[in-house]
Amino acid sequence: MRHEDAWAVILAGGSGTRFWPASRRARPKQFQKVAGTRTLIQDAADRLGRLIPAERRLVVTGVEHVALVRKQLPRIPPENVLAEPVGRNTTACIAWAALELARRAPDSVQIVLPSDHLIRPAADFRKLLTAALDEARASGALVTFGVRPTHAATGYGYIEVGRELARRGPHSVLAVARFVEKPDRERAERFLVSGSHLWNSGMFAWTTRAILAALRAHAPQVLGPLERCASAADVAAAYHALPGVAIDVAVMEQARDVRVIPFGIEWNDVGAWTALQDVLPHDSAGNVVAGGATLVAQDARGNVVHAPRGELVALLGVSDLVVVRAGKALLVCPKDRAQDVKRIVDQLAREGAEWL
Amino acid sequence: MRHEDAWAVILAGGSGTRFWPASRRARPKQFQKVAGTRTLIQDAADRLGRLIPAERRLVVTGVEHVALVRKQLPRIPPENVLAEPVGRNTTACIAWAALELARRAPDSVQIVLPSDHLIRPAADFRKLLTAALDEARASGALVTFGVRPTHAATGYGYIEVGRELARRGPHSVLAVARFVEKPDRERAERFLVSGSHLWNSGMFAWTTRAILAALRAHAPQVLGPLERCASAADVAAAYHALPGVAIDVAVMEQARDVRVIPFGIEWNDVGAWTALQDVLPHDSAGNVVAGGATLVAQDARGNVVHAPRGELVALLGVSDLVVVRAGKALLVCPKDRAQDVKRIVDQLAREGAEWL
Repeated sequence: MRHEDAWAVILAGGSGTRFWPASRRARPKQFQKVAGTRTLIQDAADRLGRLIPAERRLVVTGVEHVALVRKQLPRIPPENVLAEPVGRNTTACIAWAALELARRAPDSVQIVLPSDHLIRPAADFRKLLTAALDEARASGALVTFGVRPTHAATGYGYIEVGRELARRGPHSVLAVARFVEKPDRERAERFLVSGSHLWNSGMFAWTTRAILAALRAHAPQVLGPLERCASAADVAAAYHALPGVAIDVAVMEQARDVRVIPFGIEWNDVGAWTALQDVLPHDSAGNVVAGGATLVAQDARGNVVHAPRGELVALLGVSDLVVVRAGKALLVCPKDRAQDVKRIVDQLAREGAEWL
Repeated sequence: MRHEDAWAVILAGGSGTRFWPASRRARPKQFQKVAGTRTLIQDAADRLGRLIPAERRLVVTGVEHVALVRKQLPRIPPENVLAEPVGRNTTACIAWAALELARRAPDSVQIVLPSDHLIRPAADFRKLLTAALDEARASGALVTFGVRPTHAATGYGYIEVGRELARRGPHSVLAVARFVEKPDRERAERFLVSGSHLWNSGMFAWTTRAILAALRAHAPQVLGPLERCASAADVAAAYHALPGVAIDVAVMEQARDVRVIPFGIEWNDVGAWTALQDVLPHDSAGNVVAGGATLVAQDARGNVVHAPRGELVALLGVSDLVVVRAGKALLVCPKDRAQDVKRIVDQLAREGAEWL
């Protein structure tokens, strides 16, 4: 199948508090060079290659980040950047993008992608997208992507799979038995050995008609107000009153025909500083340096360092720390507390918002 | 006794590797605001007050630091700054200063002071100096200052005291029984309970005649070459060939009439980052911040932070660390490794001298 009416909807609304201090309100994670020379959103766009060219990419982002999107993704036409006046979770983004595409390309098929994940290699990823576009077009189902677990992760939601419904190229298409919330350690271990559970990657494929029908059936409080808007100004006004619900909860867990394509290429949601360990090379003592800084380490093992080029980080006798320098702020915490960086951000929101 | 011929010799030759990265080759510890709004050498000079005014203060420093001395101590006459072409330990500094004073003020009495210690309150310190000047003038002995131990320190040399020889105002003058090298833990504990051991503070009082006689008797290899110099240019040439010996070893441990004045006011040699714990206020969790930075701490205890005003340091779930930001360099180490910062400095000398 050719995909001349395939569009990408890139979700770039994240505020990225878990990557403070590198990610700030003014520059969340997706606009950062977390693990390379391009920012995560640039990588997300680059990965689409010629499969979905720039003029068929929509980006949904906060109004305060529109300038960053235009700067980092200059080839995307300005009218393809949808500026949310306020964040209202993924159902609102997806509904707005679907309405926009219904107007511009009613027969389109979409890939919906987060802007802040790391996925490689890109060529394999495009084969996966092609399979999903084929399946979404042919079946009219809502298609999701499930990552084959490599460890008993407790930080992801899971998808329990059912029987195989189709094959698309090298990829299998499975029924979704159910969506499962983030499990505790013991359940995660059971999921890992069961072979019937995948990580919920937050990526989707569907036709514009299919997602609109599903939103109309399961999320009318989100779709309705947006559907009645005649202009972008109307949308901005309507947005504040929308409920903030995740698409998984509002639609995916409710809809009848939901399918999943398992995949095994490298995927990382870069959910916290510790993710850098998995996506960057280590030195002989297991230390990882991102951002371009120089590391000098003695008796220092398993640390994750992020600091800009031209800076020196000297670690002596410390292990398993996260050390991040950005702007005039510095964070030091143990790796097993990296998920709690939000607590620092919350404290700063009360006491020192100039640092956010 | 009046002290119109009392001079101070301020030793400012230290390279301060233990305070890297705040202290660099270009700006050792004595030129840093380690614990206040004035640098340590400014504090050292200020403490002398009107007892020994600026025109009777000599500063011995490395030639590369003369400009810093002039800038930080603008009231000291330029001819009172002795520029060493290379560091040759304290015997050389003291010999050169003594020869200089023999020429300018042969009947003078001197106080010799490190430039990088913290001592307070200044008024009590001046009373102590007055007692020492009186004693040095009256007895012709070499007078040293011994700190009454507050704990079983293993990082200092000790002075074992003998009988009382005199009283000067509120101060007792004791014979020195012997100088003792840095002890191990067990000996340090015995010293603490004995009551007969004092920390060797590295400060001295003597007449210019007395120290020259002692140097002539015990350190002729240092004094001789300097004595034969007719000009500062000669000194610079002679300096390279001098042996580098500490005054304690070369003279104090050899001389016959050495006396010590015990004192109990606050004294800290600021020998490593952990010293900041003892000289600065703590927050409720025992964290100390110097340099003017803002600290945000959660579940973080007993850390020592040094970073400039206008910077934020966020510590989450870490304890007993030293965290120092200076220029474009950052150091993180446990407090009990703070003495090993020199190892990082040594590594940088081999691999990254631009950071020193």
